Amino acid sequence: MGLLLTMWYAAPDMRVAPDTAEHGRVSHHPIDVALPQHVEAALTTYLASRRASGEAMDPSFASAVDALSGFVLGGGKRIRPTYAWWGWRAAGGDPDGELADEVLTAVSSLELIQACALIHDDLMDASSVRRGKPTVHIAFGEKHREQGWLGSAERFGMSAAVLIGDVALAWADDMLFAAGLPSEVLRRMSEPWRDMRTEMLAGQYLDVLTQARGDSSPDAALRIDRLKTAAYTVERPLHMGAAMAGGSPELIDGLRAFGADIGVAFQLRDDLLGVFGDPGVTGKPAGDDLAEGKRTLLVALGMQFGADVLDTALGRPDLDLDTVEQVRRALVEVGAVDAVEERIEELTKSALAALDDAPVAEPAATKLADLAISSTKRTF
Amino acid sequence: MGLLLTMWYAAPDMRVAPDTAEHGRVSHHPIDVALPQHVEAALTTYLASRRASGEAMDPSFASAVDALSGFVLGGGKRIRPTYAWWGWRAAGGDPDGELADEVLTAVSSLELIQACALIHDDLMDASSVRRGKPTVHIAFGEKHREQGWLGSAERFGMSAAVLIGDVALAWADDMLFAAGLPSEVLRRMSEPWRDMRTEMLAGQYLDVLTQARGDSSPDAALRIDRLKTAAYTVERPLHMGAAMAGGSPELIDGLRAFGADIGVAFQLRDDLLGVFGDPGVTGKPAGDDLAEGKRTLLVALGMQFGADVLDTALGRPDLDLDTVEQVRRALVEVGAVDAVEERIEELTKSALAALDDAPVAEPAATKLADLAISSTKRTF
Repeated sequence: MGLLLTMWYAAPDMRVAPDTAEHGRVSHHPIDVALPQHVEAALTTYLASRRASGEAMDPSFASAVDALSGFVLGGGKRIRPTYAWWGWRAAGGDPDGELADEVLTAVSSLELIQACALIHDDLMDASSVRRGKPTVHIAFGEKHREQGWLGSAERFGMSAAVLIGDVALAWADDMLFAAGLPSEVLRRMSEPWRDMRTEMLAGQYLDVLTQARGDSSPDAALRIDRLKTAAYTVERPLHMGAAMAGGSPELIDGLRAFGADIGVAFQLRDDLLGVFGDPGVTGKPAGDDLAEGKRTLLVALGMQFGADVLDTALGRPDLDLDTVEQVRRALVEVGAVDAVEERIEELTKSALAALDDAPVAEPAATKLADLAISSTKRTF
Repeated sequence: MGLLLTMWYAAPDMRVAPDTAEHGRVSHHPIDVALPQHVEAALTTYLASRRASGEAMDPSFASAVDALSGFVLGGGKRIRPTYAWWGWRAAGGDPDGELADEVLTAVSSLELIQACALIHDDLMDASSVRRGKPTVHIAFGEKHREQGWLGSAERFGMSAAVLIGDVALAWADDMLFAAGLPSEVLRRMSEPWRDMRTEMLAGQYLDVLTQARGDSSPDAALRIDRLKTAAYTVERPLHMGAAMAGGSPELIDGLRAFGADIGVAFQLRDDLLGVFGDPGVTGKPAGDDLAEGKRTLLVALGMQFGADVLDTALGRPDLDLDTVEQVRRALVEVGAVDAVEERIEELTKSALAALDDAPVAEPAATKLADLAISSTKRTF
């Protein structure tokens, strides 16, 4: 049964898959097709320059910069730079135009905000593994132990993670400002840039508060999704990109509506995979989200619909596979999975409708529709 | 003996006190004479606008904003905005000119960087009191306990402090950018702004690392002082202010040389007060720095010169007054106090010489000389 469910999730039916290749609207521009590599190159260059000046401040600071560089360059799907780049393309940004390099650097700086978010989030959640490697606070705690240093290794790890996250947050602003964009472009994008960073932090705060309060309502889960994923991950990067290219209010509104819905749908898919995903594909242990006690919309609806086995499974680090299977079965039986799937479908539809109504330039319209499908149907 | 030493420190002789009133170079401009109040007004206005938009994101985020506002507006000497303002005045900035309000807002944003530094520092040091009130992580831990929330109160307090410090750091950039300064002014000050934030974080990191390594050499203490206090607190704010007004390289170099020396002298005075200061004047318990185990230059020299009683006193939270007196006596007897006083005097002299050589406009030259004296001779 568990295997069956996993298989079912590993091969979802493709409901709205435009055959873009046939329509000839797919871009073959070198930046468009290898965007993650270009983002990584921009980050590599920037971090190398900061390492040099950081080492000049004090040689031992280089170890902090190296930890940050390893984290930033060691993985990630570059989702936020991708949406920001395509927001810029949607408003007519030209990858052969004179500002393309500057825009690439500017959108890459979003990965530094994300580094701060993840490093601090891992600390707050006491997570020990990220992308198959020890998290920053764990790695620095280990280093403290290995070196036999004075004081608490745990406190040292915590301090290093706090400071390295702070460095990432400060450098995101520096990297954006140093990208070489004309002043009027920086001014145009200052509003989404400002709100994006605060929405991320407000979403994290709301998440911490909701967990403490034990609020497991579907409404609370959706409010966190709207701030942490929808606004911060999709809507604001699109907004920032379109604003850089001087997009019209009509275009920006359309992209934001698209981003807000796709962002939530993306999170809901992630929630399903956190419970049903194949560990071989997701890279996370089976039922990892359940063991962590995450109050997702899926879990909230499960509880509301009477999947009582959740009470005994949630937040148990020693969760066994049998219980995971029981929870999976219960979530299907009470209708929570169907309800979430339905919500994803509705959100994807409304997102695509908003995209359709907005004056989005090609090939961005096709690419954004593709991203909408792949990020809400993805199996990894 | 302890009382005697305290009295001696409470009334230092004034070695280099220019009689500015007689020379008629004292400014009576309303902003110059009530700068802290103007800084607080700018911060009050800015934080109120962010509270409104934060509440719109999610009502419960308002409690985080209120904690930050309470922290920022609840105290502090506004040292960094003061040096930045006078750096601007030194380069000819006119308090009756059309940019005065914008500059005031820009320099006030330094208090948000400092809020991040202090909130995260208190968390890393596990300090429970700041300015007579519970620190942020302690206050949020208490709230968690009072409300009977789920999970660990300590972890909740830590998470809130991490996020509220992050908000402060992000908003510092936002407040600067929204100050309304012309683009060329923002560009001119981007280098000191960039380096100041990184120097602060590099200094904190070096401090944490030095403590862990048990490095109690005078050299290590001075390196931390140069980054954490000299560069971040005095040199870069002056640099930033002068850059805003378009100051010449000659002026900027002179102000930086002045700031680097005065900043270290300021920290050395603080170190002396941390051991010898009168609790009634400093607001901190007698020997607080010793109980915390701070490796200051004073302590490093004391150890180097053979004040062995330091070994039994440093880092002992239950430090009694008798031991504090023994340490005080030993630091005087081995010559550590004299060595630090001598260093302060040398640094103050070289700072004033650099100021004298730089083309600093009045009344800034007089004011900066006054600040140099008052911040290295201060008794509270």
